[in-house]
Amino acid sequence: MTTFPEIHLTYPDWVLSVVDWERPYLTVEDRMGLAIGLARENVMRADGGPFGAAVFEVAQGKLVSVGVNLVVQEQNPVLHAEIVALMMAGQLLSSHSLSAPGMPVYEVTGSCEPCAMCLGAILWSGAKRLVCGATREDASRLGFDEGPVFPESYSYLAGRGVEIERGVRREQAAAVLDLYQARGGEIYN
Amino acid sequence: MTTFPEIHLTYPDWVLSVVDWERPYLTVEDRMGLAIGLARENVMRADGGPFGAAVFEVAQGKLVSVGVNLVVQEQNPVLHAEIVALMMAGQLLSSHSLSAPGMPVYEVTGSCEPCAMCLGAILWSGAKRLVCGATREDASRLGFDEGPVFPESYSYLAGRGVEIERGVRREQAAAVLDLYQARGGEIYN
Repeated sequence: MTTFPEIHLTYPDWVLSVVDWERPYLTVEDRMGLAIGLARENVMRADGGPFGAAVFEVAQGKLVSVGVNLVVQEQNPVLHAEIVALMMAGQLLSSHSLSAPGMPVYEVTGSCEPCAMCLGAILWSGAKRLVCGATREDASRLGFDEGPVFPESYSYLAGRGVEIERGVRREQAAAVLDLYQARGGEIYN
Repeated sequence: MTTFPEIHLTYPDWVLSVVDWERPYLTVEDRMGLAIGLARENVMRADGGPFGAAVFEVAQGKLVSVGVNLVVQEQNPVLHAEIVALMMAGQLLSSHSLSAPGMPVYEVTGSCEPCAMCLGAILWSGAKRLVCGATREDASRLGFDEGPVFPESYSYLAGRGVEIERGVRREQAAAVLDLYQARGGEIYN
């Protein structure tokens, strides 16, 4: 058995060509549009689950990082879209926290409500805002389990100062889930 | 802004020298001993939070992968010990799931009860057993927040077929938390 595993994570090539890194994303709808676009592209390219996410600096609408689901492609159970976006944000900002002293307000925008793992990760990231598109119920219809997320889970984040908006462009976000199902996408753990 | 972030994750050098990869770990106490040892070493080397974890193939007591908390060192909010161990296990077993057809039973052993993120990750990993040392209360005494984990969270995993043992070598595991505090370790998000 090799005892020297290494993880090397980059974006799929197509991410860099479809994302506009320069324009400002000033509204939640605008930011959600990017997350949904990433989710849809991930489905069309058959790179992974139908989920996209991004981290934004809110005041200027500046895109920091993006993420798409890479669980199956990377043989890595934790690489949900939000986790990828948060890992990349930490790298790009050279900080394990998005609420370090002097930092502006950062938002995690996800094309679907976070699973239990990602909800926890968002809390640890220090992001001050969470915006969700499709709902847990939308994902469940496909057979995706969101895990132990309860109403109290959202309250917990809110109690720690995280502002939460759910259901932003929900229909458009849910349509990507349906697209994945129509294309016979794998329902992994 | 660079738009080409890359994550490169390896074990700290010392991990490879202190872990015995060849011997069998046949009891939960034995497996917990390794997780606690990793946590303690992580504290002593000032590499990160006082948490260690490992993934084992239970029947043969075979060590698959280990993890230590690398949040601050790697500027990455998700790199809790369990997440590192699960990412490495996926890499080493070339599978995003520890319960793929034909696989034996795998256990995640953590020196402390999992936070909300890690509890979710353990569910997605497909591990069939979770063994914990120190408790949420032990971690909270130091100021570490475990996030939205409720009794129902454990029930949820149990309902998905995950066997859970808590409080294994708790005192020894909790002593590592106290050691971290005594050495003035940072309480990050």
